[in-house]
Amino acid sequence: MPDERRPRSVTRADVARYAGVSTAVVSYVLNDGPKPVAPLTRERVLDAVRVLGYRPNAVARALSKGSADMLGLLVNDNRNPFFAELCHALDQASAETGRSLLIVNSDRTQVTTSEQIRDLVSRQIGGLIIADVLTAREQALVEALGIPAVVIGPFGEIDGLQSIGVGFSAGAREATAHLVGHGYRDIAFVGSAARYDDRERGWRSALDEARLPLGTQLHVPFSYQGGHDAGMQLADAERRPRAVFAASDQIAIGLLAAFGRRGIRVPDEIAIASFDGTLTADFVWPRLTTSVQPLDEMAVAAVRAVTDPGPERRHRELSTTLRVRESCGCTPG
Amino acid sequence: MPDERRPRSVTRADVARYAGVSTAVVSYVLNDGPKPVAPLTRERVLDAVRVLGYRPNAVARALSKGSADMLGLLVNDNRNPFFAELCHALDQASAETGRSLLIVNSDRTQVTTSEQIRDLVSRQIGGLIIADVLTAREQALVEALGIPAVVIGPFGEIDGLQSIGVGFSAGAREATAHLVGHGYRDIAFVGSAARYDDRERGWRSALDEARLPLGTQLHVPFSYQGGHDAGMQLADAERRPRAVFAASDQIAIGLLAAFGRRGIRVPDEIAIASFDGTLTADFVWPRLTTSVQPLDEMAVAAVRAVTDPGPERRHRELSTTLRVRESCGCTPG
Repeated sequence: MPDERRPRSVTRADVARYAGVSTAVVSYVLNDGPKPVAPLTRERVLDAVRVLGYRPNAVARALSKGSADMLGLLVNDNRNPFFAELCHALDQASAETGRSLLIVNSDRTQVTTSEQIRDLVSRQIGGLIIADVLTAREQALVEALGIPAVVIGPFGEIDGLQSIGVGFSAGAREATAHLVGHGYRDIAFVGSAARYDDRERGWRSALDEARLPLGTQLHVPFSYQGGHDAGMQLADAERRPRAVFAASDQIAIGLLAAFGRRGIRVPDEIAIASFDGTLTADFVWPRLTTSVQPLDEMAVAAVRAVTDPGPERRHRELSTTLRVRESCGCTPG
Repeated sequence: MPDERRPRSVTRADVARYAGVSTAVVSYVLNDGPKPVAPLTRERVLDAVRVLGYRPNAVARALSKGSADMLGLLVNDNRNPFFAELCHALDQASAETGRSLLIVNSDRTQVTTSEQIRDLVSRQIGGLIIADVLTAREQALVEALGIPAVVIGPFGEIDGLQSIGVGFSAGAREATAHLVGHGYRDIAFVGSAARYDDRERGWRSALDEARLPLGTQLHVPFSYQGGHDAGMQLADAERRPRAVFAASDQIAIGLLAAFGRRGIRVPDEIAIASFDGTLTADFVWPRLTTSVQPLDEMAVAAVRAVTDPGPERRHRELSTTLRVRESCGCTPG
């Protein structure tokens, strides 16, 4: 846009003078409150804003408020329902501290994650929340920029950064043990191939505790398609497992689709338990029995970590809760 | 954060001097390119950034680039899979023009939408994309702020703002006509109660054209729960319809869950067609026959509208495409 349309020197006082109102009234109109403004006065103020090309300045506002009022969120792919719900919970938690949340996706091919981080930090944000797996180099950059930062969801502590995790292993073990409790002896695992995925470890230890042999292990992308492909493979196998623990709801929903396509009844012929506790897991049929991550609690902890960082608590681990529904073979009310 | 940790006067040149490198090398490290930097040099630069408290300044960068390099996106609720996919497509489309995208949710209770808009605009963004229904007052504010803006998904033109819509009525008519083509005579509608929802009009005109009586009309929230509740109502009705047109994939997935719970087979006992074409619609069973919104095309058009706004084209309407799968009774490959 040409600069003459919004000269940088126009102030709120200029707008007030042009509109013939006080600067407070200009604020009420632009903030939609806290006091009401008569419709005609509002019109006059908006006209003045337009004519003068007034644009409030973030830096000036941040300074006048005495603190940065925005948090940044870096998320890998917000289409994943789990991350979409996490974004939303973080937005709410930010709002509760009077802050806004700027969200950027980090799965772009055109821009490096480092560039995205630098861009966010340069926008005068007061803290950075990272829902993504960073490289060591990216971690070093975040640390160097000196902004309060927290990583959500890693499988343990991260050098130099605060982090908030959940008990992946314990949650997976609980879900798998629930399948064992149904009497299923042959329980497969479908999840990612990441070496550090504690959910596979949890599945394994539940089977060990029950002295059951390890079932099939399939490693696929964390997506509907990944789950669907694994489901077709299990459906067409010579010896089909009696139950599956899926490392995410997305994978479990893909499994359901594959079993549906092959006419295999869940849970009568194959039972499923999964991990995440997303909204969608409650609106497939049968509904998923799943280890629920405490999204709201994670969000509040993450916002607190960057707005009120304490030196003593670097990593915080929250617990999952098993939500029992129909996919495992239960018949909840 | 205390101000002494990041004095505002530190420049890239200071960092370069402290680290004993050129300012170009500082840029390479902070931007992760375009040229590689030796690990030890990188360490030195990051140390200098940390010690000096250097923070690149967005305003300075925007000025040096000669144009605003960020777009803002206001979206009502990114948990809705359709909006999550739209966000992602907009992020990609922005990246293709070398811009970043700042996303804010507008369904907060603590902050007004006007405040969110003002906040985004004050962050030096170069354009504003709105995936939400604005009040007249919010529209006036956007107009007054003088920033290039576009609204996505309204059901027609909007005074004073650019907009990008899709053929809601034509898409709904096509999906309903497809159900008619299967020979179903009693076709219900499940959608929102919004007076301006052209999808209901499209359903109606398909039935009119086929000289079929209007079926049941249920108005529910655009959510899984809304679809589920409508599905239970249809399942338990004295006279169950033979088919349903759902105004969104989310509603259709809720219907599927309700019919599954009641043991009603889709499509054998009740067929479904819907609207949106989200990823999830492809990973339920049976897969949804759905009128697909051209998300990528909408995203590219929206980004173009705010980065290269033309005076002549205020409203642009794109077409849906019917994707035929199993929920209607077809057996695609």
